[in-house]
Amino acid sequence: MKDFVLKGHVCYSKSKSELITRENAYVICVGGKSKGVFSELPRQYAELPIVDYGDSLIVPGMVDLHIHAPQYAFRGMCMDLELMDWLNRYTFPEEEKYADLEYAEKAYSIFVNALKAGATTRAVIFATRHRPATELLMDMMERSGLISYVGKVNMDREATEALEEESAEMSAYTTFGWINAVKGKFHRTKPILTPRFIPCCTDELMEELKQIQMTYGIPVQSHLSESPGEINFVHFLRPNNAFYGDAYNDYDLFGKNDDINTDVKTVMAHCVWSTPEEVELMHKNGVFIAHCPASNMNLSSGIAPIRKYLDMDMNVGLGSDVAGGHSDSIFRAMTDAIQVSKMYWRHVDQSVKPITFPEAFYMATMGGGEFFGKVGSFEEGFEFDAVVLDDTTLAHPQELNVTERLERAVYLELDRNGIRAKYAAGEQIMI
Amino acid sequence: MKDFVLKGHVCYSKSKSELITRENAYVICVGGKSKGVFSELPRQYAELPIVDYGDSLIVPGMVDLHIHAPQYAFRGMCMDLELMDWLNRYTFPEEEKYADLEYAEKAYSIFVNALKAGATTRAVIFATRHRPATELLMDMMERSGLISYVGKVNMDREATEALEEESAEMSAYTTFGWINAVKGKFHRTKPILTPRFIPCCTDELMEELKQIQMTYGIPVQSHLSESPGEINFVHFLRPNNAFYGDAYNDYDLFGKNDDINTDVKTVMAHCVWSTPEEVELMHKNGVFIAHCPASNMNLSSGIAPIRKYLDMDMNVGLGSDVAGGHSDSIFRAMTDAIQVSKMYWRHVDQSVKPITFPEAFYMATMGGGEFFGKVGSFEEGFEFDAVVLDDTTLAHPQELNVTERLERAVYLELDRNGIRAKYAAGEQIMI
Repeated sequence: MKDFVLKGHVCYSKSKSELITRENAYVICVGGKSKGVFSELPRQYAELPIVDYGDSLIVPGMVDLHIHAPQYAFRGMCMDLELMDWLNRYTFPEEEKYADLEYAEKAYSIFVNALKAGATTRAVIFATRHRPATELLMDMMERSGLISYVGKVNMDREATEALEEESAEMSAYTTFGWINAVKGKFHRTKPILTPRFIPCCTDELMEELKQIQMTYGIPVQSHLSESPGEINFVHFLRPNNAFYGDAYNDYDLFGKNDDINTDVKTVMAHCVWSTPEEVELMHKNGVFIAHCPASNMNLSSGIAPIRKYLDMDMNVGLGSDVAGGHSDSIFRAMTDAIQVSKMYWRHVDQSVKPITFPEAFYMATMGGGEFFGKVGSFEEGFEFDAVVLDDTTLAHPQELNVTERLERAVYLELDRNGIRAKYAAGEQIMI
Repeated sequence: MKDFVLKGHVCYSKSKSELITRENAYVICVGGKSKGVFSELPRQYAELPIVDYGDSLIVPGMVDLHIHAPQYAFRGMCMDLELMDWLNRYTFPEEEKYADLEYAEKAYSIFVNALKAGATTRAVIFATRHRPATELLMDMMERSGLISYVGKVNMDREATEALEEESAEMSAYTTFGWINAVKGKFHRTKPILTPRFIPCCTDELMEELKQIQMTYGIPVQSHLSESPGEINFVHFLRPNNAFYGDAYNDYDLFGKNDDINTDVKTVMAHCVWSTPEEVELMHKNGVFIAHCPASNMNLSSGIAPIRKYLDMDMNVGLGSDVAGGHSDSIFRAMTDAIQVSKMYWRHVDQSVKPITFPEAFYMATMGGGEFFGKVGSFEEGFEFDAVVLDDTTLAHPQELNVTERLERAVYLELDRNGIRAKYAAGEQIMI
């Protein structure tokens, strides 16, 4: 059933600064895509089944551009270290456990159920370096109804011995096998090439990934310019690169590249400390930025100057970055993004204006959604991802309009306990 | 029934850096006070009734040192302005409504129920300038079982005409009447003198409040050095004061004062931009600082250097500052305090180390609790405020110890949906 009509108070972004709210409106889904939002039901859709959500809010599904499935187990803990120490002390030992499929099944069930219960409809996910557990996660994600990219991680140095892959060749071999096995296997779940980050990938491995990419041309995800300690380490490891992102670019793993005529999407998490040259290259290559404000606070990384990226019309979305971030709520990521941008304005640079609510909403939906295609809005032609929010638990003494109710729903994280229904690409997800 | 024993995993602060976790321990309440925490039930308490909370966590009740009851109605909205504009545009018009007792009753019911449902057992509350609505709020707070100071606000300038009191004399007259009516009337609810802040109080009003204070000597609450725009305005209004806090001190409304032999407690919200002289005077006078990190982000005020205040052994607690802050969760205030301190360290001053989890927990309990006396710990002699947390909804694949579970419960805001029982001064609050 991909042809239907929902009725309610419909809220969505039209552009990065335009947030539309339509009271008692109809949003039409035909063939899994939006036909637009209407005050009166157009005659040609009069025969479609209507679900009337009454006084509820209807918003696009949230897009999480960066989340680590195996780290969900220790979300909200271990928040006392910076990135590199945090990885070594907490993250790598936890990720080792995913060699054990039984553990992976237990842990990934919890992760997938949580994502299903929230407002996220699309996610770009790091698994671990283990192929069997990654395929298990992809199976589970597929069954969840959520739409995702999932990456088997590539990493052959600077982790624990048990977590590092045996060699660049073995990493490549496993990755080839994995992509062959999963590419086209699923309806909603696709593989994404996932070099963990430069510190964990030898030049040999990066060269192998370049070859894989020449064969498959699948999207790429990684981390970039997150924390000063990490960046210094990259400079030490790759002294010939003028900036961190240049190391990915050396292996054609940094967005579109006209020289070799590739146009696969790349998303880089964080970009807190990107230099002007790095920003310029990301801009030129259409690299997506996954802004993860909670993680950047928790790991003391710093505040990414997202206002600058938005003003340059770069591709920016939000990431929960569990478990650097402690919550998988993209509602929370929106308000975190606004809050840290206010602190950046106040304490770092008063020429960089804070992020507004409509901009945060845009990043959480259309901005990140573009990584998946035409996703994240109810404008005509967008894939139909929707979340229906029941805010009746949020008592109030005064009249509120829909715009106020939407802002309140996001700030008070109604995605934790107020979701009434959820759809991805026109299919209902049973929550 | 104020004599009983609770059993569970007991977590509490012993000092600002010592967080104690005791598995399967007994915490004893006699006459509303803690007799301490024990691994085996001491023989002399063997006859007391025991409530066995099994695998649940037992923590002290949270203390909210700064919250505006009338602003709860618009929490999570109107987050696009700085302090002074935010007050004029959103806050003052909302507070005007509390002239209407019917509206106040509706709004305050929502507020009190929310506070009751959360982990807060003690709060220091701003009402509005209206005496009848303030007394209504005090009645409701008393019935809730929570313990609080509630302040009728004094303000005679720089607000809306409807919200300003008619004159300094009328403000004083109303305040005298109010204090006479409520002082000693309640068991759990006490009046606190509440000049809104210097911009809203004429010198004449401040002089009146000084007189009131000489009569009654009740605790004082106000705002201090929150936002640069506010501070500039105070300098304009009171050019002879070397710093903002000096204006309160001129009227003996700034903590203990040896000259006139007063020792009433004063709590000042924010202290984001306090000068060294102001900090020194707060330190000397034992002024409490209500750190409100969410509000300071939302209103773009800035990050308070709480590490410095803690290291000076000043009195520091946490405030939700609803509705500058959007959530009444003091669990959330803890993690916000940690997060903003990391951003302060990263972006402002790397000699000012981030707040640790034990320090945040201390501020949320013992630090703020001291405003109420011996409150906020299970050490012997402390008033018995306790919250029992059921974290079974937070699924996990691995073994977790109690310390990890506590951190997770706080980061994931288990005070929103995981409270199993709650006690204030030895009396159970039915939630």
